[in-house]
Amino acid sequence: MSSFGRFFTVTTYGESHCKSVGCIVDGVPPGMSLTEDDIQPQLSRRRPGQSKLSTPRNEKDKVMIQSGTEFGKTLGTPIGMMVLNEDQRPHDYNEMDSYPRPSHADFTYLEKYGVKSSSGGGRSSARETIGRVAAGAIAEKFLKQLSNVEIVAFVTQVGAIKMNRDPLDAKFQHVLNTITREKVDSMGPIRCPDSSVAESMVHEIEKYRGNKDSIGGVVTCVIRNLPVGLGEPCFDKLEAMLAHAMLSIPASKGFEIGSGFEGVQVPGSQHNDPFYYDEESKRLRTKTNNSGGIQGGISNGENVYFSVPFKSAATISQEQSTATYDGEHGVLAAKGRHDPSVTPRAVPIVEAMAALVLADAVLVQKSREFAKNIVS
Amino acid sequence: MSSFGRFFTVTTYGESHCKSVGCIVDGVPPGMSLTEDDIQPQLSRRRPGQSKLSTPRNEKDKVMIQSGTEFGKTLGTPIGMMVLNEDQRPHDYNEMDSYPRPSHADFTYLEKYGVKSSSGGGRSSARETIGRVAAGAIAEKFLKQLSNVEIVAFVTQVGAIKMNRDPLDAKFQHVLNTITREKVDSMGPIRCPDSSVAESMVHEIEKYRGNKDSIGGVVTCVIRNLPVGLGEPCFDKLEAMLAHAMLSIPASKGFEIGSGFEGVQVPGSQHNDPFYYDEESKRLRTKTNNSGGIQGGISNGENVYFSVPFKSAATISQEQSTATYDGEHGVLAAKGRHDPSVTPRAVPIVEAMAALVLADAVLVQKSREFAKNIVS
Amino acid sequence: MSSFGRFFTVTTYGESHCKSVGCIVDGVPPGMSLTEDDIQPQLSRRRPGQSKLSTPRNEKDKVMIQSGTEFGKTLGTPIGMMVLNEDQRPHDYNEMDSYPRPSHADFTYLEKYGVKSSSGGGRSSARETIGRVAAGAIAEKFLKQLSNVEIVAFVTQVGAIKMNRDPLDAKFQHVLNTITREKVDSMGPIRCPDSSVAESMVHEIEKYRGNKDSIGGVVTCVIRNLPVGLGEPCFDKLEAMLAHAMLSIPASKGFEIGSGFEGVQVPGSQHNDPFYYDEESKRLRTKTNNSGGIQGGISNGENVYFSVPFKSAATISQEQSTATYDGEHGVLAAKGRHDPSVTPRAVPIVEAMAALVLADAVLVQKSREFAKNIVS
Amino acid sequence: MSSFGRFFTVTTYGESHCKSVGCIVDGVPPGMSLTEDDIQPQLSRRRPGQSKLSTPRNEKDKVMIQSGTEFGKTLGTPIGMMVLNEDQRPHDYNEMDSYPRPSHADFTYLEKYGVKSSSGGGRSSARETIGRVAAGAIAEKFLKQLSNVEIVAFVTQVGAIKMNRDPLDAKFQHVLNTITREKVDSMGPIRCPDSSVAESMVHEIEKYRGNKDSIGGVVTCVIRNLPVGLGEPCFDKLEAMLAHAMLSIPASKGFEIGSGFEGVQVPGSQHNDPFYYDEESKRLRTKTNNSGGIQGGISNGENVYFSVPFKSAATISQEQSTATYDGEHGVLAAKGRHDPSVTPRAVPIVEAMAALVLADAVLVQKSREFAKNIVS
Repeated sequence: MSSFGRFFTVTTYGESHCKSVGCIVDGVPPGMSLTEDDIQPQLSRRRPGQSKLSTPRNEKDKVMIQSGTEFGKTLGTPIGMMVLNEDQRPHDYNEMDSYPRPSHADFTYLEKYGVKSSSGGGRSSARETIGRVAAGAIAEKFLKQLSNVEIVAFVTQVGAIKMNRDPLDAKFQHVLNTITREKVDSMGPIRCPDSSVAESMVHEIEKYRGNKDSIGGVVTCVIRNLPVGLGEPCFDKLEAMLAHAMLSIPASKGFEIGSGFEGVQVPGSQHNDPFYYDEESKRLRTKTNNSGGIQGGISNGENVYFSVPFKSAATISQEQSTATYDGEHGVLAAKGRHDPSVTPRAVPIVEAMAALVLADAVLVQKSREFAKNIVS
Repeated sequence: MSSFGRFFTVTTYGESHCKSVGCIVDGVPPGMSLTEDDIQPQLSRRRPGQSKLSTPRNEKDKVMIQSGTEFGKTLGTPIGMMVLNEDQRPHDYNEMDSYPRPSHADFTYLEKYGVKSSSGGGRSSARETIGRVAAGAIAEKFLKQLSNVEIVAFVTQVGAIKMNRDPLDAKFQHVLNTITREKVDSMGPIRCPDSSVAESMVHEIEKYRGNKDSIGGVVTCVIRNLPVGLGEPCFDKLEAMLAHAMLSIPASKGFEIGSGFEGVQVPGSQHNDPFYYDEESKRLRTKTNNSGGIQGGISNGENVYFSVPFKSAATISQEQSTATYDGEHGVLAAKGRHDPSVTPRAVPIVEAMAALVLADAVLVQKSREFAKNIVS
Repeated sequence: MSSFGRFFTVTTYGESHCKSVGCIVDGVPPGMSLTEDDIQPQLSRRRPGQSKLSTPRNEKDKVMIQSGTEFGKTLGTPIGMMVLNEDQRPHDYNEMDSYPRPSHADFTYLEKYGVKSSSGGGRSSARETIGRVAAGAIAEKFLKQLSNVEIVAFVTQVGAIKMNRDPLDAKFQHVLNTITREKVDSMGPIRCPDSSVAESMVHEIEKYRGNKDSIGGVVTCVIRNLPVGLGEPCFDKLEAMLAHAMLSIPASKGFEIGSGFEGVQVPGSQHNDPFYYDEESKRLRTKTNNSGGIQGGISNGENVYFSVPFKSAATISQEQSTATYDGEHGVLAAKGRHDPSVTPRAVPIVEAMAALVLADAVLVQKSREFAKNIVS
Repeated sequence: MSSFGRFFTVTTYGESHCKSVGCIVDGVPPGMSLTEDDIQPQLSRRRPGQSKLSTPRNEKDKVMIQSGTEFGKTLGTPIGMMVLNEDQRPHDYNEMDSYPRPSHADFTYLEKYGVKSSSGGGRSSARETIGRVAAGAIAEKFLKQLSNVEIVAFVTQVGAIKMNRDPLDAKFQHVLNTITREKVDSMGPIRCPDSSVAESMVHEIEKYRGNKDSIGGVVTCVIRNLPVGLGEPCFDKLEAMLAHAMLSIPASKGFEIGSGFEGVQVPGSQHNDPFYYDEESKRLRTKTNNSGGIQGGISNGENVYFSVPFKSAATISQEQSTATYDGEHGVLAAKGRHDPSVTPRAVPIVEAMAALVLADAVLVQKSREFAKNIVS
């Protein structure tokens, strides 16, 4: 459905050929400074057309706050936001439309909803993510003021080219501890902070572009300075909410927290994160962080980090042998130029969804803490 | 929190040392045959103590239906279920309790809730999963009658020993198409259907047991005969609900659907699942299934399959260097014998959580279909 | 919070001095004819300034659909709707603002949110109801196609002047059976279908207008042709959802279903609704309808009817002795002309909220029916 | 459905002839003293058979906490509670069962669920309220520690005999300010604190008992010492949540807050509650309280009070002319002795549902306050 979150809630609307896309963000605390300038930067990072690595369409995507603020401050009421669509005309159906595009949502949307829309897969259009990113920017602003929470996503893999993501690798831990959005963006549109692999990634993408093909990748995200205690066992563990959020992003195929899939090969004696007393922060910390900052579904004060794989873009301009809705065999090729790798563009979307999960988890936990203090 | 699902909902209660554990299942359709005999088998598969591969504790775990049925038929009212705990006495705290066990939930539960409990990590106790499995058995019975939905989970990796999980591998596809619970259980407690690796997995586990250590693994799950159209974009895509469910299982560290993490290396031209008209089922199907049976967040009628990594068990009997809650350095070793690999026991829990997601998704979708037919 | 409904959900935004007000309606079935023309009539009925009985402000309130439709048909995706505000400038605070207006939400909003807004009571502004009415119009269209559901609200009391609302009164039952919106509107802005009291009501309102005072009233609503089986015991009984909806309307002070408050004086032998077999509809019906069409929280196929009292408008132009936020005693009088009775304007809002409850209840029940048929 | 609340949540199960009835309460703060002794008193007040005014059945209703506490303190995990049913055998169907009892839920349950159960109306059985009362007792304990919140319900009307409930009546305001449960119970089973009418009420009930008939009544409830700021506009206004809760109680037919239905006759100049600065509490208060302690959907610090009408009991032992399920005309009379007025027994149920609404509202508001303080 189109709402996400319990206390800090976003509800989105919009397809690619309607008048506008947007969202309503409910639960934003009152008295917070907020203007379009807080939201536009992440929307702009989300935009296609930023470089030759991505598609040349140039969307403007100017966000307009409709409600919930006055004189640059939030009122505590819902924040309505909208972004106009450039192309607001639904198109007439042509021969192309007789084909469900392979690995798009055309077929399943038609089966589920029984109607064809100009956007094909309806809400699976990438423009649906605009509302998420706008809402996430507000969540981030709140988290920043909470405890200087930092959320930074970056590309760690394109095709077979990957950064080392082993939690026991010192260099990877250094990246998790220090990476900033400025650093990520300084690497150019590839958004991989490891200069030793970033260039290979660019080459990898160019190779597939040349073949009129596409290639997937992995986005890794780290969250620093998160309070201890977030997450609501047993069903709404923090990692469960993050996984839900990440798998709701178009083209994502998975999620792993901390040591993830590779970690199953590490024996308990190495995988366990032993405690030590940290003189600087005056509290227990863990020497390693295979857990990814969450234990028993609850944040433990270490960096939370996770990775999300994005499949190769389904839209390719080489010919594909497939079938029409009517079951006739045929050949389909996308017209125009297409982005061979959407992975770098997923970076701000991953950040936004993480921020939404965290802002919600903070609000829940703070009511828990309050109640605990009342009765004990 | 302790509820999962919107229309087919389970709410669970219970820790390891209270009187009982159990659940309330709401939204079960009326008029369905249901007795304890429908539920006990999966609870028994969940039990520890089934072989030398797992811990020798022998719990009885007899489920007792409290409400919602009469003369062996459901009434449409909530099904209350309970399982008595064998050891109902909370223990007094001893020296062991001054240590938060590394990579357990002891530390985070204490930080979040401010109280120590006999179960240490409170609801992170494995006994919490009893309510899930009992509820899942009811969901499965409904799904079976819906369209003979089959849900089968099995072990595909222990430590470094793994079955091929490549979606483009014919043998793996054959397993997905044919695997049954009977086949899984016939392999003994390892629950890996591939006899060529099952034995190595047993050896791997024994090796870690000998070292007083533990090792992780991966559970893969396939769902067959699922209707087209399940899943609610944009936030409650079917894979997002599955990911949420799986990451809520204790010790799980990730989720991947279809081609998952490895799939990012497969170019779009190969990764796309081309359509063809299937004469047998008289409908469009896909030649390959890299998508894992879900496109645009909606089931497409192909097998849904996904994998979940489980970390190495945190409880090991070898000494670990760690710290007390007070920050003093010390050495901790678990007493008694401990299960070196919990992965095989996760099999029925994965099946149960999948069933709960699907039953809920079916109820949502069927109301959508009804409404669509009314207006168009 | 700003969302209502589980399957058929509306989320609203907007205050009186922001750029626009609007809503997102999620769960609208695909393939339904829908344009602004379906929505505008109820919005226009909601508008102030329709006659000398109500305030002379003339708002335009033109609704603009943003998403979710194409070529006049719904897509099954969220319907975004917006209505521009005429006065989009928040005002600077003046002396008036040092007073919390008595029985407005100024004080409680300031206490809860800690900020003053131009609309004073923030979301308690009457403009917040625009989103509800727009969403309700869509719900109604669905219900009409479901089973020709008719929802008609009307004024049954202004001050001490009232229509007989006794369920055992034949004339009242006739009104419930036959009243239409056309009939209601034909009575002029008073919206009371009983010509014998409508004129007295108008006089009553004029009397209070002359006194620079205001007066309350009661809106009664009937729902005809509703299917049997709606409502979800035990907490979401149909009357409980209706009560929730009605008490969320600004200025409402209560709710009663069927015989309501007066019915407690009717002994069981008379209050019970005996069954009989109706030859025309070929099913059991009840001879009387003290129950108000709901028994055990579930619709029984008879007319559902309920009443909602609306308090006297808090804004009056006569002087009131009160205090400033700082606690200083003072005298406050609203400037300009003000509506002495908001009750008639509540009519389309009551209808809209009823429609939203019912559309949601239908979607839930239809999934229940489907599941029941599968298993039994 | 069977869950109520967002953060302080109760889920109930059980009919009248199953093994047990009970509930799971989620969101109870950890570290709170809690044993069965905190819960039993309200369950005992709910029990029938307390006097000749109510039915002579004597249920034991001993609550047993299953989980969530240790050594008399809550753990922060769900509290499972159960009460055994005395009569756990579903009965075989007899001639009586061919009649849907008039104004019971037999007919609608059969229509909705398609199955007959021994309890007839399934979850509409009064035993369903046991879980509510048990959960409410926990909510109350939390609210007591929050700010000494006091919730007292009492009978203000039986048939035509009523206490003055006019908010502008000094005597009624005195009752609201001072009434205690001890005072209510000291009046005997009639639970009306006004000795001038209590005796007449008893006579009224006896009159209907003599006629083998029944009579309805009104329960009024006051909540004192509630913090300012509770309630979540625009859809979850505090009165909307209370109305939802009250209309979910079996046999309730309405709800009014503050001046309610009668208040519509009071002009704004009198109905508005003017502010004054209260020297004692050092804050703004209102001179009158027609609002019922809630303005704009948010508690304002004055007493919250509301009334709920309960219809005449549907079960009467005099003969009623009605029809069988098959549509044949016939005569039905309940066997045995029956309670002619259930209104007094509703008192602890009203208190419990109010407590559940308030505990939930407190948890939501405290997270809002926290967030507000963070950003401003």
